[in-house]
Amino acid sequence: MVLPNHETATGDIEIADGRISALALHEVANPKRLVLPGLVNCHGHTSMTLVRGLGGGLPLDRWLNEAIFPVEAKMTPADVRAGMAWGVVEMLAGGTTTVADMYDFPWDCIDVLKETGMRGRVCRVGLSFVPGRLEEAIEYTRRENISSASVGNLLTAVDLGLHSEYLTDENYCRGLAEANCELKRPVNVHVSETEREHAECIKRHGKTPIAYLADLGVFDYGGYAAHCVWCTDDDFRIMAEKKVSLVHNPSSNLKLGSGIARISRALELGVNVALGTDGCASNDDLDMFEEMRLAALLAKGAARDPSVLPAWDVLDMATVRGAKALGMDDVGEIAVGKRADLCVVDLDRPHLLPALDVANLVVYSMKAADVVQTIVDGRVLYDRGSYPTIDIAKARAEFQAAVGRIGL
Amino acid sequence: MVLPNHETATGDIEIADGRISALALHEVANPKRLVLPGLVNCHGHTSMTLVRGLGGGLPLDRWLNEAIFPVEAKMTPADVRAGMAWGVVEMLAGGTTTVADMYDFPWDCIDVLKETGMRGRVCRVGLSFVPGRLEEAIEYTRRENISSASVGNLLTAVDLGLHSEYLTDENYCRGLAEANCELKRPVNVHVSETEREHAECIKRHGKTPIAYLADLGVFDYGGYAAHCVWCTDDDFRIMAEKKVSLVHNPSSNLKLGSGIARISRALELGVNVALGTDGCASNDDLDMFEEMRLAALLAKGAARDPSVLPAWDVLDMATVRGAKALGMDDVGEIAVGKRADLCVVDLDRPHLLPALDVANLVVYSMKAADVVQTIVDGRVLYDRGSYPTIDIAKARAEFQAAVGRIGL
Repeated sequence: MVLPNHETATGDIEIADGRISALALHEVANPKRLVLPGLVNCHGHTSMTLVRGLGGGLPLDRWLNEAIFPVEAKMTPADVRAGMAWGVVEMLAGGTTTVADMYDFPWDCIDVLKETGMRGRVCRVGLSFVPGRLEEAIEYTRRENISSASVGNLLTAVDLGLHSEYLTDENYCRGLAEANCELKRPVNVHVSETEREHAECIKRHGKTPIAYLADLGVFDYGGYAAHCVWCTDDDFRIMAEKKVSLVHNPSSNLKLGSGIARISRALELGVNVALGTDGCASNDDLDMFEEMRLAALLAKGAARDPSVLPAWDVLDMATVRGAKALGMDDVGEIAVGKRADLCVVDLDRPHLLPALDVANLVVYSMKAADVVQTIVDGRVLYDRGSYPTIDIAKARAEFQAAVGRIGL
Repeated sequence: MVLPNHETATGDIEIADGRISALALHEVANPKRLVLPGLVNCHGHTSMTLVRGLGGGLPLDRWLNEAIFPVEAKMTPADVRAGMAWGVVEMLAGGTTTVADMYDFPWDCIDVLKETGMRGRVCRVGLSFVPGRLEEAIEYTRRENISSASVGNLLTAVDLGLHSEYLTDENYCRGLAEANCELKRPVNVHVSETEREHAECIKRHGKTPIAYLADLGVFDYGGYAAHCVWCTDDDFRIMAEKKVSLVHNPSSNLKLGSGIARISRALELGVNVALGTDGCASNDDLDMFEEMRLAALLAKGAARDPSVLPAWDVLDMATVRGAKALGMDDVGEIAVGKRADLCVVDLDRPHLLPALDVANLVVYSMKAADVVQTIVDGRVLYDRGSYPTIDIAKARAEFQAAVGRIGL
């Protein structure tokens, strides 16, 4: 098993009441399984499983306007629910135990999380041009989180969300920041994904998106900012100070031609860096092992230095640093007292021998398909192809019906 | 099934005498399987499965001198054979039907190919500092290929190999070129992998590695050049003219910090571009689906343009263009008369729905673990976890013994 602080051990993990109650460490010769903390996907639009691969190869504006938006406009709550459920199926099969989601109809998305038992955070997408959206988002967040003063480690919770600087105006940001004095939620936001978006914000406001949003108080209770491809060193300093995590989405950033986020530099400047898959139309899957591998390779290739971003750091990004990004301090590590979110991998695969270095093996050689069991809050949600909490035939049928309904 | 010229169809594939004898095309509603041409891995050091992940994170010179070379020096022919066999197991499980290999003890490597039935090309590694190496390589190539005047589509053959410009002198290159007037083999070579190697060649010879080797006649019968990260436009023009294929190794080039090969530009200038995994210590697996995905993503990200390198081109690089790189004109396509090298994929996986666009699905969403059957020359070599031509328990035991013997 993978322990905190880049240590490993063999033995048994005991679970009680959703938590790791004891670690019975003892010598095991040639272990056949590896237990990792469950993977934390910090940026998803999970229901976009419905449009997997749609518009592949189109430039960003045509991709959005010609491929994605027209289809999204047709999606009903039932469609989004079906797409979310199918995404949960895919993520659980690949060892992902938590997702931070941003999509329309978040109440349907969170229902799917509750029904399936997966951990997650949802948000109402913050958009200025939708009348009443801010009030609705605040009301929804307040209602859903009322049950606990500290929602940090709950299975599900609602965060505040802001699509981006370019789709919200100053009033929206100020209103959100004000409400957050009471709600105290980290804010889920897209930041500096494309060079153009970053430059246009500077032209409009005289500041980068990170500086602009921080100055409006949006990050007073932290946040998790997806992409950050064009962030400056000063942006990273603000993020470190305001506890805004950088959610790196390497597949999506490459596929849409956005660029390569400077995550090694962000880490140097003290930013908490996490990983996300983004949606299935720019990835085109929800595979956190692929994101780990790509993050590791890309950092080395971009720096032209194989020593940057060691494998252990990447594994932390996909687990404990992801949990931290979402304000969860009891998730993401295998230690007594932590929530039992686990991912069990079969080591008896051709591509996993020899196992010379655990972190290296996980990041560069291991694949989502090597996962044999996924456990969330002590419950087995995936077990060698079966899903104890999901009627898989029904989920598939509803998913395919939704795909048909939206005309694909 | 995936047909030539970026077409797809449903129906049955008939096989006789190792070839596709007929395609019985007919409508199939909701096909559950997809048949691709078998994947062609054009650059491997397959036996390096023995040192999977060794020295991860070290800079290239320390990686070679401190991690790789000391262990390689201990490898016996039996070790290399065991590593090769285990690599064949991994590749067959992931739909790879051909490998072009460059490693010590190629006669052991080719024996493994013959025993298992996998298609492949091996070569004696060309190195000036080993006395008698050139004569030995020529003699071996002549002996192994004597059975056929046109070895192009044979299951196994020996090509001439040259490690690189920096490990061979002018005499070696001239001698190889001269012998090749009779042998007529494409040359397997590493070219311009690192900036330093490229620059030092220019300092030594006043020319780039490609120009230098071409001027010495090394490419008079074509070749396949791995890496080419630092090749110039003029290099690409020479490669197009001399029929030297570029073998792109995106994982390895990133992991070792070598850089990003400009394959879109090479394609523009008429170079045949293929794909390879390189060895398992710089990848760290033999997964051609990952190389496809990474090649596609990286080209878009590096160009900051999502429209470059469409998915169909990437699939061609991993199949028919790979076969062409190795001088095989009867391999790499599903068409009547071609060799029956096939890879059958199960489409009933969460991450493969919906299947909106076949090439996009293969390149961005499909994984090695989705392969259910791999067929070479009409023989089923892999079938849902079983290997009809391989005693898998023996292969595993021999592999693990070899790993132990070399001290890992």
